[in-house]
Amino acid sequence: MYYNYFPTKKFQIYQIFSSNTNLGKTIFSTGLIRASIIKSQRNKNHYYLKPIQTGYPKDDDLRFVKTYLPEKFNNLIKLESLYKYEKAVSSHLATNNPIPKDEDVLNKIKGTISESYNESLKDGGRLFLETAGGVNSPIMSGTIQSEFYRALRLPIVLVGDSNLGGISTTISSYESLTLRGYDIPTLLLFNNERYNNHLFIEKYFNENQNSSIITPKIFTISLPPPKAENDLSDVKELKAYFDSNDEKFQAIISTLEEWHDNRFSRLDEMEEKAKEMVWWPFTQHNIVDGVNVIDSAYKDLLISYKDDSNLVETFDGSASWWTQGLGHGNSKLSLTASYASGRYGHILFPESIHEPSLSLSESLLDGVGKNWANRVFYSDNGSTAMEVALKMALTEKQPGDGKELLILGLEGSYHGDTIGVMNASIPSIYNKRVNWYSPKGVWFSPPQILMKDNTYRIFTNGDEVGRFDSLSEIFSESRVEKDRLSYHYKQKIEKQILDHLNQGDQFGALIMEPIVMGAGGMIFVDPLYQNQLIKSVRSMLNIPIIFDEVFTGFWRLGRQSGAEYLNVNPDIAAYAKLLTGGLCPLAVTLTNEQIFDKFLGNTKVDALLHGHSYTAHPIGCLVANTSINEYIDLFKNVWNKSREEWGDSDNEIFSVWSKSSVKKLSCLPNVNGVFALGTILSIELNDKSGGGYGSNVAKLFTEKLSHVERNSIDDFGIKTRPLGNVVYIMSSLISDEKSIRNIEKKIINCLSE
Amino acid sequence: MYYNYFPTKKFQIYQIFSSNTNLGKTIFSTGLIRASIIKSQRNKNHYYLKPIQTGYPKDDDLRFVKTYLPEKFNNLIKLESLYKYEKAVSSHLATNNPIPKDEDVLNKIKGTISESYNESLKDGGRLFLETAGGVNSPIMSGTIQSEFYRALRLPIVLVGDSNLGGISTTISSYESLTLRGYDIPTLLLFNNERYNNHLFIEKYFNENQNSSIITPKIFTISLPPPKAENDLSDVKELKAYFDSNDEKFQAIISTLEEWHDNRFSRLDEMEEKAKEMVWWPFTQHNIVDGVNVIDSAYKDLLISYKDDSNLVETFDGSASWWTQGLGHGNSKLSLTASYASGRYGHILFPESIHEPSLSLSESLLDGVGKNWANRVFYSDNGSTAMEVALKMALTEKQPGDGKELLILGLEGSYHGDTIGVMNASIPSIYNKRVNWYSPKGVWFSPPQILMKDNTYRIFTNGDEVGRFDSLSEIFSESRVEKDRLSYHYKQKIEKQILDHLNQGDQFGALIMEPIVMGAGGMIFVDPLYQNQLIKSVRSMLNIPIIFDEVFTGFWRLGRQSGAEYLNVNPDIAAYAKLLTGGLCPLAVTLTNEQIFDKFLGNTKVDALLHGHSYTAHPIGCLVANTSINEYIDLFKNVWNKSREEWGDSDNEIFSVWSKSSVKKLSCLPNVNGVFALGTILSIELNDKSGGGYGSNVAKLFTEKLSHVERNSIDDFGIKTRPLGNVVYIMSSLISDEKSIRNIEKKIINCLSE
Repeated sequence: MYYNYFPTKKFQIYQIFSSNTNLGKTIFSTGLIRASIIKSQRNKNHYYLKPIQTGYPKDDDLRFVKTYLPEKFNNLIKLESLYKYEKAVSSHLATNNPIPKDEDVLNKIKGTISESYNESLKDGGRLFLETAGGVNSPIMSGTIQSEFYRALRLPIVLVGDSNLGGISTTISSYESLTLRGYDIPTLLLFNNERYNNHLFIEKYFNENQNSSIITPKIFTISLPPPKAENDLSDVKELKAYFDSNDEKFQAIISTLEEWHDNRFSRLDEMEEKAKEMVWWPFTQHNIVDGVNVIDSAYKDLLISYKDDSNLVETFDGSASWWTQGLGHGNSKLSLTASYASGRYGHILFPESIHEPSLSLSESLLDGVGKNWANRVFYSDNGSTAMEVALKMALTEKQPGDGKELLILGLEGSYHGDTIGVMNASIPSIYNKRVNWYSPKGVWFSPPQILMKDNTYRIFTNGDEVGRFDSLSEIFSESRVEKDRLSYHYKQKIEKQILDHLNQGDQFGALIMEPIVMGAGGMIFVDPLYQNQLIKSVRSMLNIPIIFDEVFTGFWRLGRQSGAEYLNVNPDIAAYAKLLTGGLCPLAVTLTNEQIFDKFLGNTKVDALLHGHSYTAHPIGCLVANTSINEYIDLFKNVWNKSREEWGDSDNEIFSVWSKSSVKKLSCLPNVNGVFALGTILSIELNDKSGGGYGSNVAKLFTEKLSHVERNSIDDFGIKTRPLGNVVYIMSSLISDEKSIRNIEKKIINCLSE
Repeated sequence: MYYNYFPTKKFQIYQIFSSNTNLGKTIFSTGLIRASIIKSQRNKNHYYLKPIQTGYPKDDDLRFVKTYLPEKFNNLIKLESLYKYEKAVSSHLATNNPIPKDEDVLNKIKGTISESYNESLKDGGRLFLETAGGVNSPIMSGTIQSEFYRALRLPIVLVGDSNLGGISTTISSYESLTLRGYDIPTLLLFNNERYNNHLFIEKYFNENQNSSIITPKIFTISLPPPKAENDLSDVKELKAYFDSNDEKFQAIISTLEEWHDNRFSRLDEMEEKAKEMVWWPFTQHNIVDGVNVIDSAYKDLLISYKDDSNLVETFDGSASWWTQGLGHGNSKLSLTASYASGRYGHILFPESIHEPSLSLSESLLDGVGKNWANRVFYSDNGSTAMEVALKMALTEKQPGDGKELLILGLEGSYHGDTIGVMNASIPSIYNKRVNWYSPKGVWFSPPQILMKDNTYRIFTNGDEVGRFDSLSEIFSESRVEKDRLSYHYKQKIEKQILDHLNQGDQFGALIMEPIVMGAGGMIFVDPLYQNQLIKSVRSMLNIPIIFDEVFTGFWRLGRQSGAEYLNVNPDIAAYAKLLTGGLCPLAVTLTNEQIFDKFLGNTKVDALLHGHSYTAHPIGCLVANTSINEYIDLFKNVWNKSREEWGDSDNEIFSVWSKSSVKKLSCLPNVNGVFALGTILSIELNDKSGGGYGSNVAKLFTEKLSHVERNSIDDFGIKTRPLGNVVYIMSSLISDEKSIRNIEKKIINCLSE
């Protein structure tokens, strides 16, 4: 079976949610199914799925639906219920032990939908999934429905509340669904003429049209006669009610069909339109193969639209450019963002303070900045945060002899794409075509660590110069005294600096990405080397040490920061990416009081004259604040198992990727080397053609990884963006163990074929 | 009377909102008031305000509260109701004609609260404001309560729903309030033991703690006996009920008191903490006088905390660094942001497309980019958008002779603070201390326009060279042929370019802010000059024209873009600020296919190698999409009156600031000149000390503007940030006429004193 539980062009799915309990969900479902069967001229399969029923068998929604469908429809509809409970209370109270796990319930629903989909391949089908209670009523485990069903993000038929007070509950339930990213093409309710809620609600949604969110089309149906229990006359009456409302329901079905068709037409055109209108970053438009048309995303999965009209889940293997910490579609972050927006919007920052920026400042100075930083400067992305770092280091109170200051850095480093920070990177084919690029630095060639054949090896310019059995050995502080490389590194570094000083060069800062250089090719640098470099610079030159932690910050490597691994305090450090948990741009540059004091004076001219309009915007700050606290929790609780598996728990050096898989990979003949640290698994492939940005080996491998059969419910493709012949997979901080193990298996399989 | 309708340290206010109707709001209010009077040992004033009552006098909540307070409390409490209706339906149905206007209702409530506040100055007081129906139930005009009361943003006591289905409505109503920026310190509900909603809700909020949002503390009270109508025995029973629950209610009051005290303690410490931790942009920390402690913001008003423990409203006169288009705390933008976050989070952009970025691209190419732009490149702020523009212009497929290309620009221009775009501005005290700053351009001195003594005058280097009576004359296309300045400009520009070409200089681009140079000092440049400059450059040099529309874009000047005024299509243009309606960072660089094609090739190396992690983040794109559509509506409908007043409606050249006020200002002796265009009112003060960044005259004037007496309900201070001796006030696009007129009056008064 091909697993598909999303709507396709030919297979429509609607989910019936309700603003409260007892508002007539099943009556509306019945009406919709009748109308849909009639409208489709009985040549499409129909499905009614009520995953959870309480009050059963006294109340049986399947029986109700069946009763009020014309008998001739009997063989055109399948009715299904997966969990039935006798007590007429909320599912979390009605359930028995053992309480079904969310994952199992979801898989059962996915399986049922998939079966229906497969039965309907030829003529198409319609599935109506009816929830229980209100939008935020819990299922058995206690997970509220709006959260539980988010994995499917089915289009919603929302049943509104026509009772006194129902305007409020209808709007609120609409808002609860919207903030979780659901689309609500229609809103149905009874036209209770005492309160006329339907008139108000119709007006409300008309006046509050939002060009970015589907505004539900409102339909009203007359109130039904009293619900039949077992009274035959009542059944008759209700049958007549349905007969008389069939046309109205057909109008609703038409609207849904139209919405569905428009949705897929739009999905069909998005690739071409994007190719015409958008200029993608870092992309050669002449060689774009396929465009990833993203319909939505949830947790680690991107849901994208493929040519065959299906929506397919793919693991977001580059964590969306290294931004994802807490998963896509995280409702806690959504609510946080909306609260900040609702309370403040953006506020001019100079000489102002608001709670989001103050609590984030406190959190950062007590976190990544602990014991060294005193000041937080806000900006919008890693590049601007590094520009700020440069300006902090390179601003002169009394301009000297006008000589240009150089920075010291590492080959393979990357600090962003604005021209100032470009000038802090070594010339390469990636910057030298920009006329204003003008390299201003001296760059050291750092030794790199990779595991090959179960052993970590240090390479300097391709030569192996050292071996280690474990990460703890690599990070052991005793290496400074015991490792013969220590002296060798020192000699070489200091000679190079001296040579430049003798040539008359003047330096302004040492800049580095601690431990792992990301964009430069996932280069795991020998920490001993970085430690020695810092020590030499601090002893020879009076210049600030700048850490670019844009990539390494916030538990990416299994620790709060790269600096923590080096046991070194920088003078200035920049952070971004994971800072906001993968939601929106925000960056910070932290520094100490000494750097800050350089800019004190009597006039504005002495100040750091840098700022962006949305500096410290409340949404970014508040979301960052929540994210960091979530990270701390995850680190304490969820990552324990990984720590144990790596056995380096004392030093807390570990990865979510298993040691055993890393070792297996290191022994494959087509792998030059591998390493895993924190969320990163990096594999350098053996590319005989020389590698580089256009590595073909990497391309073939990532194509294999992205492939998916969907013949099991746990099968998903993996989306990665290789860096030359280096393929890396990056988890978020919430990636579950099962997915991680699946991915490891898939990687090993693909490389062993 | 001093108008104050916000809580202060000594004056606590709570607003009772309910998840649905008939959940016992008034019972909870009564219990809270009883407990509060007891706890405060009867030495504080108490107030019960039920602004709107329906079903009156049959149901009279004032009577109910009074009945169940001990008699001895009678002189300790004032009960008030402002609008009473007989029908027992929602307020919007119960009301009579004429329907009270929201503004009047709000002012009445503000007045009532202010009276209570003034009565309680000595001993302090407590006010409990009880709403009607559910959180989103409408008031008389049809405005839903969560929106209507947002102007006050009072702390909420939320009454939860203990009935079947009540879990859902309780959570939804909590979310509706949260996304509008309310704080909800407590949630109260009955412990209905059949459904035990209170147990679930308590667990839910415990498990969903969010470090950035107040998690309500849950309190449960046993179900009350049937509500008394006029049955004396029932009254007795209910009295006994309240007696027996007094202690529980006192615990709630303690929690509220504690929350209230913590809130104000935090507000008290924020200024000092900010001074210690934050490094503000563009700020000399040695001369920070007072810090603006922002508690929240709404529409054009910033609500900040002052030393006397009061929250004070100030008009956001610089539109929060020129970002605000649709007002602070705009719930439509909140919901949009949360939807994008809930549906996507952030998604890796290269070779991907999602609806928010595609619809925004379509909207931009059909809007500011119409008839000239084909491509949208996304980044995060004006500075990065201009860096992208520079890289588009200055990237060479075949590196030439290695000579540095210069840009052509205007003196007084500003393009951002990253080092690349800094290099595109003329040397000044604001950039030359940065060691890596290296100016790469030739800058022209542009003629400036100001109105003085009712006449627009053109100044070149301080000399008046032309006069106009109206904006239409200034922008008239016939000036090219008729205005003698036309030839003069051309001569001068072309000579300067020729001189540089003869020196061997090579040029890469012409860069300018069309019409108004913002950060450079609100300089209104003669459009004829800019037109001539572009024409000369296009005829003499084959280089792209870059418009920096970061400040001028999106109706800031009353038109979609500055380019529209010049009737010129640039080759590249950058936009940001108003793009997202004042919510979060997002910027775009638009360009034509010719520029785009330069970067096509066979390898990635030929591509534009620029990108930021959050490129085209869905929240920013979707919010921008909504904002632009709102702007279009506002422009069509709301600004008509201003257009008429200016009488330049044919040309659509006008300002929301009235022509008559501008003229008055232009005649004041201490004003050098003034101009208004679109949202901007700019006043150049006569500063005999020479002006500049530290202008004292400007400082005194802005201090006066920020001053507020609060002796009328419409009185507010105005927050502005002068640029040297130029003081500007900028409205958002939703600023109401009344406020604008008030501000004009205040400005004229302050300058006439």
